[in-house]
Amino acid sequence: MPHPIALISDFGTHDWYAPVMKSVILSIHPEAQILDITHQISSQNVGEAAFVLWNSYTWFPKQTIFVAVVDPEVGSNRKILLVETAHHYLIAPDNGILDWVLSETEVKRVIEVSNKKYFLENVCSTFHGRDIFAPVAAHLSKGVALENFGTEINPPFIKSPFITVQHEGHYQGDILYVDTFGNLITNFKINSDLKGHIKINQFLIPSISTTFSSVVSGDIVAYKGSSGLLEIAIRNGNAAKQLQAGFQTKISLHV
Amino acid sequence: MPHPIALISDFGTHDWYAPVMKSVILSIHPEAQILDITHQISSQNVGEAAFVLWNSYTWFPKQTIFVAVVDPEVGSNRKILLVETAHHYLIAPDNGILDWVLSETEVKRVIEVSNKKYFLENVCSTFHGRDIFAPVAAHLSKGVALENFGTEINPPFIKSPFITVQHEGHYQGDILYVDTFGNLITNFKINSDLKGHIKINQFLIPSISTTFSSVVSGDIVAYKGSSGLLEIAIRNGNAAKQLQAGFQTKISLHV
Amino acid sequence: MPHPIALISDFGTHDWYAPVMKSVILSIHPEAQILDITHQISSQNVGEAAFVLWNSYTWFPKQTIFVAVVDPEVGSNRKILLVETAHHYLIAPDNGILDWVLSETEVKRVIEVSNKKYFLENVCSTFHGRDIFAPVAAHLSKGVALENFGTEINPPFIKSPFITVQHEGHYQGDILYVDTFGNLITNFKINSDLKGHIKINQFLIPSISTTFSSVVSGDIVAYKGSSGLLEIAIRNGNAAKQLQAGFQTKISLHV
Repeated sequence: MPHPIALISDFGTHDWYAPVMKSVILSIHPEAQILDITHQISSQNVGEAAFVLWNSYTWFPKQTIFVAVVDPEVGSNRKILLVETAHHYLIAPDNGILDWVLSETEVKRVIEVSNKKYFLENVCSTFHGRDIFAPVAAHLSKGVALENFGTEINPPFIKSPFITVQHEGHYQGDILYVDTFGNLITNFKINSDLKGHIKINQFLIPSISTTFSSVVSGDIVAYKGSSGLLEIAIRNGNAAKQLQAGFQTKISLHV
Repeated sequence: MPHPIALISDFGTHDWYAPVMKSVILSIHPEAQILDITHQISSQNVGEAAFVLWNSYTWFPKQTIFVAVVDPEVGSNRKILLVETAHHYLIAPDNGILDWVLSETEVKRVIEVSNKKYFLENVCSTFHGRDIFAPVAAHLSKGVALENFGTEINPPFIKSPFITVQHEGHYQGDILYVDTFGNLITNFKINSDLKGHIKINQFLIPSISTTFSSVVSGDIVAYKGSSGLLEIAIRNGNAAKQLQAGFQTKISLHV
Repeated sequence: MPHPIALISDFGTHDWYAPVMKSVILSIHPEAQILDITHQISSQNVGEAAFVLWNSYTWFPKQTIFVAVVDPEVGSNRKILLVETAHHYLIAPDNGILDWVLSETEVKRVIEVSNKKYFLENVCSTFHGRDIFAPVAAHLSKGVALENFGTEINPPFIKSPFITVQHEGHYQGDILYVDTFGNLITNFKINSDLKGHIKINQFLIPSISTTFSSVVSGDIVAYKGSSGLLEIAIRNGNAAKQLQAGFQTKISLHV
């Protein structure tokens, strides 16, 4: 099997943008194996895409080629990056969309993509997903060597976006993401045996549990989520609505 | 081709949960053929998933492995079932999500899944979809024999959720499901030549038709739907909105 | 690889309709390669589907089989068409859904589909997607010759839905489509070096730009979109909301 190609974008699922990217890939490489992460990133929300990509990438097969297209500066002179990490490839505009992944991953090479040989013939300045990102991914999956796509540049230095909770004390953090269930994902990286209490808005959560069913239906529960981050939920409810919390709501943790 | 793996869940299509399940499957079994039924079941709505699964499963290729993850009790001591039927395999929490399928299907074996050899190494208590359901499905699709996944248990007895309409009389039923078009699907199992009239809220439907175009645009139409159940629609309209009806609205049928 | 099968419909992504179509295809042709364009066409909106299909089809691999199911007259005596063009196959109800594609494409043969040998055994009058369209596509992808599906008929004459802007003058057009980003797509087919100004509602756009980043954040921008049509956007905004414009809003262009 060729390396899978995994797509993440803000193109939505109503229009032709995402399927056209896939059809361009298949036109160049008919055996390509394409997987959608999501195309429902909020319009032009680079940070949201960065977080979803970070939550996804470690689980994909080795040598997966990730194509991340949330690209408000499309058609300007922003760079297009092709990154080789220890286990994967990443293709994306140079706008921070890779920051979360790169903050945790060994970078082997970064190429600034420039070789028009691997683009579609007519590049439209508003749809590089179709005309540049898709064909570059397709050619990479067919085995074209990295150095053919452009010039090697220095990898960016990325600051970790997490707060690692290890010692006793008082920590201030944020809600990073609200998921489909209304669960609130924080930027606290925690161990599963952490003891402490949490304050969010006017609500106090007196301890950290193992899972939803540690509390009764309707109660607030804090736990180490499946991403390794502290999460807050309401059992059989929607924490975002019931706690009136969302992206960037402040949260404090005492351990 | 290996047996297809069909997924149904309430994980939504905005987050990383569903694609991460797929990537775990592909990491274990790169040739797996994965199909989405839907990931847009309403949050924690086990009954809705049971109905959608029932509407889907007979049409899938033989030996398809269905993975149904709507799992409000994740992390508790609820069982995980692996069911072998005459034509398919089903993997799901033991919470009723398989009831509709099992009420109509010959069950050959039921295994309570417990063998950690086929789980991911670290099982997170809030995401068994990734850490248990996906890897078990992947190993099953690679040919691991059923008895290796756990202990055989007795199949549950399931009462049919349908009302079969065969004789003259007066029947009381419910709306089971409202589809994308606003069509109302009832729990009356009918023959296509059924004669009778229907009452729903203050609306009377005087006869049962063959298809939408049996009535003029804007009129109410009742017909045997593609699931074999009586359905109610508005031609070129939305019956749920226009009849103010929805899940569990009462309906009466005189034949 | 067999010819890909590309699906477009108004079946939504919550119900079983689209996955059941795919499972019927795979039951008949297990090696079929199925691609979704979208299943989120507005209910029964044939014109919207026609436009999305036109935006998609040229990018798909040669010999792709397109199946377009937006079918308000399902179960009536409307025809089902199987069209062979220079590069592709199209299967759809005869209701205008193919008009945009056929207005630009060389038609080689049109078959009125009637041979029940290639339908499912019991055809339900409300779900031809499952019982006729899916199995016909699957058999076609397995290599059944076109003439076996029914009788050849004359291709329809289709009038181009575009206004081609080539000479100086004053043009009156419409908004054809609002995409996920709120960008407004018009029916003006233009060259990329077009000079002129545009009026939409009370807003004047003094010139035509290359891409979003030609204007500052929050400004209106007009440009040749990736479909070759004039589009109107707000940089980092939502033009549909901010200009109070939508499907069929009038637009005037002076060149």
